[in-house]
Amino acid sequence: MPLRIDVISVIPGFFDSPLQHGLLRIAAEKKLAEVYVHNLRDYGLGRYRQVDDTPFGGGAGMVLRPEPVFTCIERLLGERDYDAVIFMTPDGERLDQGKANRLSRKRNLIVLCGHYKAVDQRIRDTLITMDLSVGDVVLSGGEIPALMLMDALFRLIPGVLGDSESALTDSFQTGMLDSVYYTRPADYRGMTVPDVLLSGHHRKIEEWRYDNALARTRMMRPDLLDNETREELENT
Amino acid sequence: MPLRIDVISVIPGFFDSPLQHGLLRIAAEKKLAEVYVHNLRDYGLGRYRQVDDTPFGGGAGMVLRPEPVFTCIERLLGERDYDAVIFMTPDGERLDQGKANRLSRKRNLIVLCGHYKAVDQRIRDTLITMDLSVGDVVLSGGEIPALMLMDALFRLIPGVLGDSESALTDSFQTGMLDSVYYTRPADYRGMTVPDVLLSGHHRKIEEWRYDNALARTRMMRPDLLDNETREELENT
Repeated sequence: MPLRIDVISVIPGFFDSPLQHGLLRIAAEKKLAEVYVHNLRDYGLGRYRQVDDTPFGGGAGMVLRPEPVFTCIERLLGERDYDAVIFMTPDGERLDQGKANRLSRKRNLIVLCGHYKAVDQRIRDTLITMDLSVGDVVLSGGEIPALMLMDALFRLIPGVLGDSESALTDSFQTGMLDSVYYTRPADYRGMTVPDVLLSGHHRKIEEWRYDNALARTRMMRPDLLDNETREELENT
Repeated sequence: MPLRIDVISVIPGFFDSPLQHGLLRIAAEKKLAEVYVHNLRDYGLGRYRQVDDTPFGGGAGMVLRPEPVFTCIERLLGERDYDAVIFMTPDGERLDQGKANRLSRKRNLIVLCGHYKAVDQRIRDTLITMDLSVGDVVLSGGEIPALMLMDALFRLIPGVLGDSESALTDSFQTGMLDSVYYTRPADYRGMTVPDVLLSGHHRKIEEWRYDNALARTRMMRPDLLDNETREELENT
């Protein structure tokens, strides 16, 4: 069964070309993931299909009204069981590789993309089961975070990547950053490749990559080498 | 002068619809930002326009070759001065709101989107001046992170958002998460809005929002309330 994602957005056309390129296209073509983009405005109020309104208490920006979101999500919930109703928001739990691994094994997910200033809090209190953040930076809406979530999840589904090994050796999957890589030409304008990588000596190459990954992690992301990871490394 | 961003990608069509919707479209229409997407394959080698090759030392995945990237970036560097040549990578510095604020005041930026397994390290050592990460999650390429960067930057350019106050009260700009928001209807299926927001009493509303923002930050993101911020809060 493919992973099904229902995305709810006020600018559904945003997703057109991303879903037709690269990994998101491949996952759909291989029938390992299905993405349905719903136009929140189809559930809008009145002849102008209103979906937002000014915030109570005043202030700048617009707030998504409850009715269209409730109607849209309750309709989906009536059609099938969902594992989670996710809201992409900068104050949510950080999306990390562990969470991506777990979510990639789910069946059906709803992803609500915020837009404008905020969504009415009653939506979050009542409908949303998981708040996810893609980092400490504010964006104009949840559409780009939703793309990020889909890409992160789809590439972990067995069969989406051509070579399943590729996802397993990624940065973070091993608890460390990945090593650096080189390809042809071996000499480009006098810039050369480390000899060991050209040696054909597989054990030495693996050692070099491990040492390189560990050194880069120590320098750039020592926080990844928490106690648990360090113990594991020492025991291997 | 608008902020100019030159994006280099192996799937340039990915950007078509995101650039035609929402904030990215608005920034371009207002002539406050310009995005040029370059197809790396235009700089590829031979009749098949090759841009990648297998990694030295073996292993899964493909690595972007130096020549096409050097040719493309050096051509751009010959045309105008750039403030930074950015590579979107999970082992880069985290893109946060402070970095977005600073980058939004730049003139010209190049953003290289990785793809496949990695880029040849000589590209990173020689051409790249800034490695940026959008979080501890691995993606299939730098295209979605590049969108995230552009959205984060463009919305901070004065005039892009309709109401400039809106960006200033966002989460993180104040050192805290934002308060919650409500809009009409005041009673939706028995779910009501806090009385104070309907009171019309501006000072009390501001106090409620401040307390709400502080309480949410304490609960969900205490790390944001570092010593400096706490001191500021105590002095106000």
